[in-house]
Amino acid sequence: MDEFGIIAKYFAPLAGEGAFGLKDDAALLAHRPGHDLVVTTDSITEGVDFFGFDPSPSIARKALRVNFSDLAAKGAVPAYYLLNLSLPHTVTPDWLAGFAQGLAEDQKEFGVTLMGGDTGATDGPLSIAVTAFGFVPSGKMVRRSGARAGDHVYVTGSIGDSGGGLAIFRRENHSLSDADRDSLIARYRVPEPPVTFASMLRDIAHASIDVSDGLIADLGHVASASGVRIVVEGERVPLSAPLRALWGDNTLQRAVTAGDDYQIAFTAPPGLTGPFTPIGRVEAGQGVGLTLNGVELALPSRGYRHF
Amino acid sequence: MDEFGIIAKYFAPLAGEGAFGLKDDAALLAHRPGHDLVVTTDSITEGVDFFGFDPSPSIARKALRVNFSDLAAKGAVPAYYLLNLSLPHTVTPDWLAGFAQGLAEDQKEFGVTLMGGDTGATDGPLSIAVTAFGFVPSGKMVRRSGARAGDHVYVTGSIGDSGGGLAIFRRENHSLSDADRDSLIARYRVPEPPVTFASMLRDIAHASIDVSDGLIADLGHVASASGVRIVVEGERVPLSAPLRALWGDNTLQRAVTAGDDYQIAFTAPPGLTGPFTPIGRVEAGQGVGLTLNGVELALPSRGYRHF
Repeated sequence: MDEFGIIAKYFAPLAGEGAFGLKDDAALLAHRPGHDLVVTTDSITEGVDFFGFDPSPSIARKALRVNFSDLAAKGAVPAYYLLNLSLPHTVTPDWLAGFAQGLAEDQKEFGVTLMGGDTGATDGPLSIAVTAFGFVPSGKMVRRSGARAGDHVYVTGSIGDSGGGLAIFRRENHSLSDADRDSLIARYRVPEPPVTFASMLRDIAHASIDVSDGLIADLGHVASASGVRIVVEGERVPLSAPLRALWGDNTLQRAVTAGDDYQIAFTAPPGLTGPFTPIGRVEAGQGVGLTLNGVELALPSRGYRHF
Repeated sequence: MDEFGIIAKYFAPLAGEGAFGLKDDAALLAHRPGHDLVVTTDSITEGVDFFGFDPSPSIARKALRVNFSDLAAKGAVPAYYLLNLSLPHTVTPDWLAGFAQGLAEDQKEFGVTLMGGDTGATDGPLSIAVTAFGFVPSGKMVRRSGARAGDHVYVTGSIGDSGGGLAIFRRENHSLSDADRDSLIARYRVPEPPVTFASMLRDIAHASIDVSDGLIADLGHVASASGVRIVVEGERVPLSAPLRALWGDNTLQRAVTAGDDYQIAFTAPPGLTGPFTPIGRVEAGQGVGLTLNGVELALPSRGYRHF
């Protein structure tokens, strides 16, 4: 099937108002009065962010959600997306049907529509770039740069589960129950960014980031952008029971560097309660520290992606 | 160099207002009152749309311009872009510096700024997805669907030159002068979409498309979207002297199916004059016809991209 056939069959049914059924050169993004338009783009690639054997609906959902996570961390609610697909020649109609089904499910879950994209063949790995658009009330986008000394640090959800799922795929030894194993794998395959939390976040947060590179690394971005020091109190970092069962005594240090969490880390005034966990504090200085019951831990370094 | 290093060194200097120096999770796209925001996205891939040995500044400019062409065909003026890069491990700092230089030159030429993107490594070919944003006065976007019987068909620039350049790279025999050869290669490497024509286009055109798949194929999209038949009068199609020197008696039929032109084909009332050439007419019916001095020609079929 050619590019036009693939678009007409699988993607045109997902098109929203202003996308003209994906049959024009461009789309119109309607302005929402009183709001700012927030945009982010992130690619996922086979062998790096997912496996070729992952179910195609979950690959589609991961491609969307890693972007919705960025929007949520800025206090924005997703509205539209674009899709750039590089498809290996081995992709089948069944695979595409499942992929479109995953997109359709998440469109329904998150209230978004497809506004355009392109589809090409590649001799390389399957690669999917999504560009996501969201709206935030004017002037209310939460930046990385607003953290101030005296803030506390909070995080949604639990940290490290996706990294645990990946470790299992990499044949790390474990004696988990099937249920625990599957719960970690599910977190790797389909992130659960706290999209509905965005509206609360923008009213309380001074600074915010989505946890994708790893909790310590991402808080490092906040510390750097804000000109402050962030101390993570390791005993407070939310770690799931399946992850503790997998990684034992190493859970904390592996979890805070694993990445792919797609939760939100933010700084805000002390003493807040809600669907998040306090995990540390903001001080004068620079960089990120990690303590366990008051004792400073050596910071595990994280591998960089080399070119 | 890691992803953060590449972004900081080569791309952060290109960031516009609202992009926060490419140091946040997302960007803000400022609304322009009285205008609609138009978005389009297109990828170019090594071995398909350019060669690995092409100069990296020209690859950068092609990646931008194939998108600006779509905006221009809708009557929109480019303002912002996003960049998703998949870089082979063999890419060097020199290559990246040239690539960023090409982006910078076109940012200046077209008045656009970089608003975000991502950069990843790939074992596959070099691939660049650009998402471009432009503004058009509210309600004035030119669609593919507005052609009506009685319209004439017009095209900007000349047709087929880029295809001629590609043919030369594919070692097609020729006896062109160096200047003619280089002019065709230049059109392949760096398209010249008529971006400044957008403001005139939106006042005169009933329907419009950018010529990327080939003149006949693209007018077929207009005919289909508008529910009309389009007849191209072959003797009127603008063909450059270098292209005629390359393709001789086959020039017309090869040019109208070559693609990669990034000119604008549009329908409008008869008798218009301006920086464009009348090449045919719109009738009741469907599909596209090609005549030469009144005689119907067999339509050359164009290869589809198979998956």
